[in-house]
Amino acid sequence: MPDLKFRVKAKSVNATKTIVKARGFEMIVDEPAGLGGTDEGANPVEYILAAYAGCLNVMAHVCAPEFGITLRGVEIDLQGNLNPNRLFGKSFEDRAGYKGIKVVLKADCDADDATLDLWIKDVVNRCPVGDNLKNTTDIVIKVKRSK
Amino acid sequence: MPDLKFRVKAKSVNATKTIVKARGFEMIVDEPAGLGGTDEGANPVEYILAAYAGCLNVMAHVCAPEFGITLRGVEIDLQGNLNPNRLFGKSFEDRAGYKGIKVVLKADCDADDATLDLWIKDVVNRCPVGDNLKNTTDIVIKVKRSK
Repeated sequence: MPDLKFRVKAKSVNATKTIVKARGFEMIVDEPAGLGGTDEGANPVEYILAAYAGCLNVMAHVCAPEFGITLRGVEIDLQGNLNPNRLFGKSFEDRAGYKGIKVVLKADCDADDATLDLWIKDVVNRCPVGDNLKNTTDIVIKVKRSK
Repeated sequence: MPDLKFRVKAKSVNATKTIVKARGFEMIVDEPAGLGGTDEGANPVEYILAAYAGCLNVMAHVCAPEFGITLRGVEIDLQGNLNPNRLFGKSFEDRAGYKGIKVVLKADCDADDATLDLWIKDVVNRCPVGDNLKNTTDIVIKVKRSK
């Protein structure tokens, strides 16, 4: 199959609130009041976890039949810690983003433990969002004045 | 400052649609019909780009005063290509996720080019989402049966 291309366009509403358009969908990203925001949407690092949750659900279902698993559904709990010091320019000792991400995935199915283990390894190996988080990804940014 | 902890909980509605809760916010992730989905929300890899857009807006505003920039707003265009062969288990030659991410950020301000260049380097260096995409992040997944 050829490569798929994805694209979104975003516009700031204020210093923390961003409206993002992807095809016909609109996403609102903001920060909570405690981080100086107007709290009108989940924040950027919560969006990462949402992206990963959505991708794990898709991959769980794509891979299940290959392991003979009848999957009735999944529940996923995701969390991560980050130190805001770099973000706020107070210290550059820690990295800016999540130091790690912990996931608990509950699968509604009757597969045995050994099958579940093989299945989840395949899910993780083939998950696009997980790949971009676990491994390095090249980012090129061009900046321009808008006027 | 101490570490901040972020957490979301997600539940599958069907094989492609996931409802994600982050504090009081609900996010719907789905896949377009062309990728076998019910198309009720942006898809997981579009959510990554939304997360990055939101984070770049915040960091653009956090860093601007440090460079003497009066920032009136930003517009951000983000795109990436990925090969779906690994996802679908057809070939394991390419990685699963974005091969790279391209961003064009238009800043509504009067700063000169040299100042814009210094500012965007700082924005990128201190952006949590960008850090998790550009660099490696440890992910630990536990799988359980829900019953």
